[in-house]
Amino acid sequence: MSVTAARGFAASGVAAGIRRRDRRDLALVRSLEPAVGAAMFTRNRVQAACLQVCREHLALAEPQAVVVNSGIANAATGERGVLDALATTAEAARHLGLSAEEVLPLSTGVIGVRLPMHKLLPGLADAAAALSEDGGADAAEAIMTTDTRPKTAALERGGFVVGGMAKGSGMIHPDLATMLAVVTTDYPLGRGEAIEFLRPAVERSFNAISVDGEPSTNDCVILLANGASGAARDDAAFAEALDEVCAELARQVVADGEGITVLAEINVSGAVDDAQAKAIARRIATSPLVKTALFGHDANWGRVLMAAGSAPWNGGYAQVEPERITLRYNGTVVLDRGAPTDVEPDVSGPSCAIDLDLGLGPGKASYLTSDLSYDYVRINADYRT
Amino acid sequence: MSVTAARGFAASGVAAGIRRRDRRDLALVRSLEPAVGAAMFTRNRVQAACLQVCREHLALAEPQAVVVNSGIANAATGERGVLDALATTAEAARHLGLSAEEVLPLSTGVIGVRLPMHKLLPGLADAAAALSEDGGADAAEAIMTTDTRPKTAALERGGFVVGGMAKGSGMIHPDLATMLAVVTTDYPLGRGEAIEFLRPAVERSFNAISVDGEPSTNDCVILLANGASGAARDDAAFAEALDEVCAELARQVVADGEGITVLAEINVSGAVDDAQAKAIARRIATSPLVKTALFGHDANWGRVLMAAGSAPWNGGYAQVEPERITLRYNGTVVLDRGAPTDVEPDVSGPSCAIDLDLGLGPGKASYLTSDLSYDYVRINADYRT
Repeated sequence: MSVTAARGFAASGVAAGIRRRDRRDLALVRSLEPAVGAAMFTRNRVQAACLQVCREHLALAEPQAVVVNSGIANAATGERGVLDALATTAEAARHLGLSAEEVLPLSTGVIGVRLPMHKLLPGLADAAAALSEDGGADAAEAIMTTDTRPKTAALERGGFVVGGMAKGSGMIHPDLATMLAVVTTDYPLGRGEAIEFLRPAVERSFNAISVDGEPSTNDCVILLANGASGAARDDAAFAEALDEVCAELARQVVADGEGITVLAEINVSGAVDDAQAKAIARRIATSPLVKTALFGHDANWGRVLMAAGSAPWNGGYAQVEPERITLRYNGTVVLDRGAPTDVEPDVSGPSCAIDLDLGLGPGKASYLTSDLSYDYVRINADYRT
Repeated sequence: MSVTAARGFAASGVAAGIRRRDRRDLALVRSLEPAVGAAMFTRNRVQAACLQVCREHLALAEPQAVVVNSGIANAATGERGVLDALATTAEAARHLGLSAEEVLPLSTGVIGVRLPMHKLLPGLADAAAALSEDGGADAAEAIMTTDTRPKTAALERGGFVVGGMAKGSGMIHPDLATMLAVVTTDYPLGRGEAIEFLRPAVERSFNAISVDGEPSTNDCVILLANGASGAARDDAAFAEALDEVCAELARQVVADGEGITVLAEINVSGAVDDAQAKAIARRIATSPLVKTALFGHDANWGRVLMAAGSAPWNGGYAQVEPERITLRYNGTVVLDRGAPTDVEPDVSGPSCAIDLDLGLGPGKASYLTSDLSYDYVRINADYRT
C-alpha cells in the first residue's frame, strides 16, 4: 500500500518535533531508479512558499524525491519562507545524493509561521536514514494533521502498480491543513508525459470533492513514475489505474472530513455541458444549508434547488430552468419536472445520494461532500493549540 | 418607524394561520395616494412564483400595494404556484379598490409547498380591514420567520421621510426564509425613477451582507414613493436617506443572523477595481473557516488570506499578490506587505473589523457578515417543525 507499493520506491516518516513532540511529522519519498514526474497545485492566488519552489524545481529537472512536513504550512511567510523551502530541499538532496532541483518540498499546517529549521534539518538526516521499501505507512502517517487516520491506496494492473498516500480533513485544523497527495508508479512514462495522465485523474477525483469548499494555500498532488516494473505500455490501463487510486484517496479524504457524519454524493445530469454541471454540483456540495440539512437527516430539498439556481458561472449563474428539474434523494423522486411529488425520501442513513437532472443537455458531473456538523464548527473554532 | 413612517402609507399585519396558529403571518402595505415604485430581485435562477408575478405586474402598472405572507415561500410550486400568487393579488386588489397589477405579492417560508389559499384569502379581508397609518410595526412582525426581532428603520430629511421594514436571518429556518424588504417614502419621484435610486442603494446595503452566502429563491426589495410630503426635489438628499435606511435594515438583518455571536465587517481596499474588491470581500465573508474562527474569537488570519486568494472571478480567481497584502484586525497589523508581524490582535469582543489592503489599485468594497456558530448548525439541521 501507499507510496512504496510500486517497485523501486522507498519512503519514511519520522518525528522531527516541528509542532508537537513524539509524533511523525516529516516524510520522505524517493524513487530508487530514475523517475519522471509531475505535480498539480491549488489555484489559490495565495500559495505557500513550498509550492513556489516546487514549480521552479519542476521547470529545471524531473523530480526524484518528495519531502513533506506537517504542522506548519510555510505559507504567508514571505521571501524567508522561500529560502526555508530551498534549504529543506538542498539538505534532503545532500542526504539522498540528488541535486536540490530533483526534490519537491510540501508543507501542511499553520499559516503565517516560519518552519523551525533547527528541528527540520536534523530531522531530514533521520528521515533519509529511515528510508525503506516498507516505509509507505510511516510516510502516510507523518503527513497527517487533523486527519483521524492515514489515507493510502494501491492497485496492481497488468504488471505495474500505482500506489499513493494523501492527507486532508476539511482544509484546516486548528488552523489549517490542506489536501496533499503523492502517487507513485512503476509504470514506464517518458519525460513530459506524467502531467498528461495526472491532470484528468485529478480533475475527476481531488477536484470533485469538498469538505468545506476552501481551496487551500498548499494543495498539491504529485505523481512520480520510474518504470521499474518493466511492464509494456498500456496507457489506457494505466490511466484507469491512476484514476482509481486518485478517486480512492479522494474518497478517503472526504470520508475523514472534519466533523463528518454523513457522506453525500451529488450527481448532476442534464446540464448544458459538463463544466456547468460541475459548477452546479460544486455549489450544492458547498452550500451550508444543504450540508446542515444532511447533518439533520432532513431532505429539505428546496435547499438543493436554491443552491442549483445560484451556481457562479461567467459572472452570473449557471443555466437552470426550474420547470425541467427532476430531483431524487436515494432514488426517491421528490421533484418531477418542476412539480413536487409530496413524497418524503429516506435520508436516515450515513450516506446520501442526491441526483439532480436538469433536463437541459448532456452535461454531467459528480461531487463527494460531507455534512456540516457541530464538530466541524468545534474543530475550526478552537483556538490554535 | 417602518413602512408607515412616511406620510400617506397604511399597513397591517394579521394572523391568517398559514403555517402556525396565533402569530401574524400576513402583511399588507399600501399607498394612500398614487405612488410609483420599483423592485429588485434575487438573481437565483430558481425564483419563487411570487417573484414572477411581481415582474409581470411591474411591467404593466406602477405598484400601489404589497402583500407579504410568511411561513410558505411559494417556490418550486410550478404553474399552480403562479396561479396562487395571481389569486392573492386579485383578492387583495378587490379589497383595496386597486387593479391586481397594482399589487405586488411576496412570500417567505418553506420551499416546495403550496400556499393554503383557503386560509390566505380570508386573511386578506382581515388585513385590508386592519390597514392603518400606525400599522408598520404589525406588518414588520408579520413578515418574520426565524427572525428573533422585527427590523425597521426610518429617517426624516428636509421635509420627506424614508421608512422601511425587512426580514431575514440567515436564509432559512427549518427550511427557508430569505431576505425581504419594503421601503416607502413620501418623497416625490416620477415614473421610472424609483429603480434608479433603488439599484445603487441595494448594491451598497442588501447586496453587501451575508449570513451564509445563500441567495434565496425569494429575495426581493421593493420601494414605493408617493410624494405625499410635498417636499421639493433634492435627489442627493433622497439618495443618501434611502442609502441609510437600506444600510440600517441590512445591518439589522446580519445582526439577527441565525446563530450569530460575532458581527464582522470586512473592508477590502487596494483591489484592482471595486468589482474585484467586492468579489474578494464576499469570499471572505462567506468562508466557513473565517466564520468559525470568528466564532472561536481566534484571529487565525491565514484563513483570510486563503479566502482572499480564491475569490471567484471570470472563471478564475480575483487578482491578489501576497507580497503586497497588509491585513489588520481591529486596527492591529498582523501582516505587513506580505510579512507576518507576529502580533496577536484582540478579537475577544462581539464585533470584529477585518481590513485587507491588497496594495494593487483603487478598488474598495465592504461586507457585513456573521460568524458560524453551533447555533447556526442547530437551527438549520433541525427537522422542519
